[in-house]
Amino acid sequence: MLHAEYYNQLQKQEQLITKQNQPKDFYNGIFTRWQNPVLTRGHIPLFWRYDLDVKTNPFFMERLGVNAAFNSGAIELNGKYYLVARIEGVDRKSFFGVARSDSPVEGFRFLDYPVRLPDTCPEEVDVYDMRLTQHEDGWIYGVFCSESKDSASDDLSAAVAAAGIVRTRDLKTWERLDNLVTLQSPQQRNVLLLPNFVNGCYAFYTRPMDGFISTGSGGGIGFGLCKDITHAVIKEETITSARRFHTVTEGKNGSGAVPIRTEKGWIHIAHGVRNTAAGLRYVIYAFATDLNEPWKVIAEPGGYLIAPFGEERIGDVSNVVFTNGAIVRENGEVYIYYASSDTRMHVASTTIDRLLDYVFHSPEDALRSVDCVSQRCRMIDHNLEILKREEKDGNA
Amino acid sequence: MLHAEYYNQLQKQEQLITKQNQPKDFYNGIFTRWQNPVLTRGHIPLFWRYDLDVKTNPFFMERLGVNAAFNSGAIELNGKYYLVARIEGVDRKSFFGVARSDSPVEGFRFLDYPVRLPDTCPEEVDVYDMRLTQHEDGWIYGVFCSESKDSASDDLSAAVAAAGIVRTRDLKTWERLDNLVTLQSPQQRNVLLLPNFVNGCYAFYTRPMDGFISTGSGGGIGFGLCKDITHAVIKEETITSARRFHTVTEGKNGSGAVPIRTEKGWIHIAHGVRNTAAGLRYVIYAFATDLNEPWKVIAEPGGYLIAPFGEERIGDVSNVVFTNGAIVRENGEVYIYYASSDTRMHVASTTIDRLLDYVFHSPEDALRSVDCVSQRCRMIDHNLEILKREEKDGNA
Repeated sequence: MLHAEYYNQLQKQEQLITKQNQPKDFYNGIFTRWQNPVLTRGHIPLFWRYDLDVKTNPFFMERLGVNAAFNSGAIELNGKYYLVARIEGVDRKSFFGVARSDSPVEGFRFLDYPVRLPDTCPEEVDVYDMRLTQHEDGWIYGVFCSESKDSASDDLSAAVAAAGIVRTRDLKTWERLDNLVTLQSPQQRNVLLLPNFVNGCYAFYTRPMDGFISTGSGGGIGFGLCKDITHAVIKEETITSARRFHTVTEGKNGSGAVPIRTEKGWIHIAHGVRNTAAGLRYVIYAFATDLNEPWKVIAEPGGYLIAPFGEERIGDVSNVVFTNGAIVRENGEVYIYYASSDTRMHVASTTIDRLLDYVFHSPEDALRSVDCVSQRCRMIDHNLEILKREEKDGNA
Repeated sequence: MLHAEYYNQLQKQEQLITKQNQPKDFYNGIFTRWQNPVLTRGHIPLFWRYDLDVKTNPFFMERLGVNAAFNSGAIELNGKYYLVARIEGVDRKSFFGVARSDSPVEGFRFLDYPVRLPDTCPEEVDVYDMRLTQHEDGWIYGVFCSESKDSASDDLSAAVAAAGIVRTRDLKTWERLDNLVTLQSPQQRNVLLLPNFVNGCYAFYTRPMDGFISTGSGGGIGFGLCKDITHAVIKEETITSARRFHTVTEGKNGSGAVPIRTEKGWIHIAHGVRNTAAGLRYVIYAFATDLNEPWKVIAEPGGYLIAPFGEERIGDVSNVVFTNGAIVRENGEVYIYYASSDTRMHVASTTIDRLLDYVFHSPEDALRSVDCVSQRCRMIDHNLEILKREEKDGNA
């Protein structure tokens, strides 16, 4: 017989996991927000947290608590939807867990075990934010951040970040490859792999950090190629979507979901950061790159696509939305999985058609207030004419 | 025919704008908080955000989204109440929009177009936080922050701030004057113009920043005079309300609403900032300056007048209340318009009599805990006597 509280907690968890999701009363014509988070710490299996042995855990006490489930890679496989979540223990260490559902908006359940990454980097202390790429070479790749203590620094908190690479065919067995080496950038975060070869090479989006020479202090989302994925070395990175003063990318920016291939180009759903009096603010923005030369930005709407809203504003790291996974169905539906405030996962749904219309037909950032006002007034002029005509036609 | 969603969204907006406001269940005897924000991004006209042309916007998609409406200047004109709001696009650029109502606490509607400021500063990237002054020279002045990229810095995010000046008679046509020059201070934020001449000059409250010599690193709210408003130059700034250790002004402080002229002095409703582990905390405080020598502080109650409360605490920059506008009616009613967390506008109502009583009869900051306890215990002593007497008289 298990502890009585186990059954009680299990029932609560079942209610949480099987709760039907509904669209939110939020409208912008671009995407639909859904009411319930798709993953929370409440979704973590009880047997990952509690010792179920009544002899050793008579109080039915959490022995290995979980703090949060967030920043998830996403993939559709054999008709199922998978999220590979960043799960953070109460001890601050993150790891990956695979959750599966028959639906893209609800019902995600974790598999029996978290991902057991091969321990190939003795200096690695933490791993997080996996991007999943179904590559045309037949493998599913996971590219994630591998963080170590900066042994060169006197600061106990100083960390160095690299891009770790794993591959799998079934999301159960993972083969670890060498960490990515970028010769121009001593550190990397927010790296992802494009699903297609580019000029016969594996193509990565990167986020060159301190020390990246050719872009000076400008920075932005980088792009680079490598021949051998098992010992990936990028010699040269070029900047794609750049950081710019007084835009959503002013503080920093980085890749998000694996780019979506469309007829008109690759659609990127990335993140931008600015500083505020209350700390950093992370938003999600979008841009498109050329299909054949995917380092060339061909469209970038001004401003953000998704910003923290309502209860998303609050969490372990407030004022943050972040995505590292989206799923595109064959029928053109797109599910953007995004975390809020480093605490929980949400889903926003849209379609390829809407995303294309948004990315290619929303005005670019005019960069100066006075030009942004002109841009808006041109639209207002046109709109007021339309409204006048409607009134005349008696449709008002 | 317009997109069906237009009519749906228009109806929702009408409900928001016409929603009646009620006082909140909050009491301190000094002011009344009102339940509904008076301006939000939901108040921004649909035709400022959506292209209404079904041919070019078939999905009825926000083309130029708006993130927030906050920090508003305020003025009463010909029996109407006007707020000149800081409106921030999703692209982070702010601009000004004029909203009008027949009531000081509800029903604010934006005019058809945002304020089109003359483009006289090619380096200017952003504008925000306009203070409106009905000056005795007959003009309505707007003094605002004009922000540019700091071209001298390697940091992509570095900005420099100056005070921009415009004037108008009708809040529709705006004449731009030269930016304020303060010879002692290379940068300015939170500048406002007093409604009356002082010694035959235009009188400004300033917020001297880096490089302000005569106050060292102390800072505070400055005061300065200039002859010619069309090329305003302030040679010398003197500090009025100062920054002080372990008070609400410790981190920084600055002017808020245009000072209110009373028989006993100018009443200032300003802001003070302190640092916390979660970033800066902005509160609103009050003080009074001498009627004829308005740089001299003659009363300053300890502590804040308004601090973030309930849902005001959360927003794009949480833990902030900020005012740059108040309206005083002839009958003595005062409406303080304040933004919360850089996201939305609220109103607090009071009267000149209450404000005077608050500013002149609330104790000053005793500056040390032990002295604050003494201050409080003197009041408690007196109160306990009163309560004992009441009990004896059988009124309890």
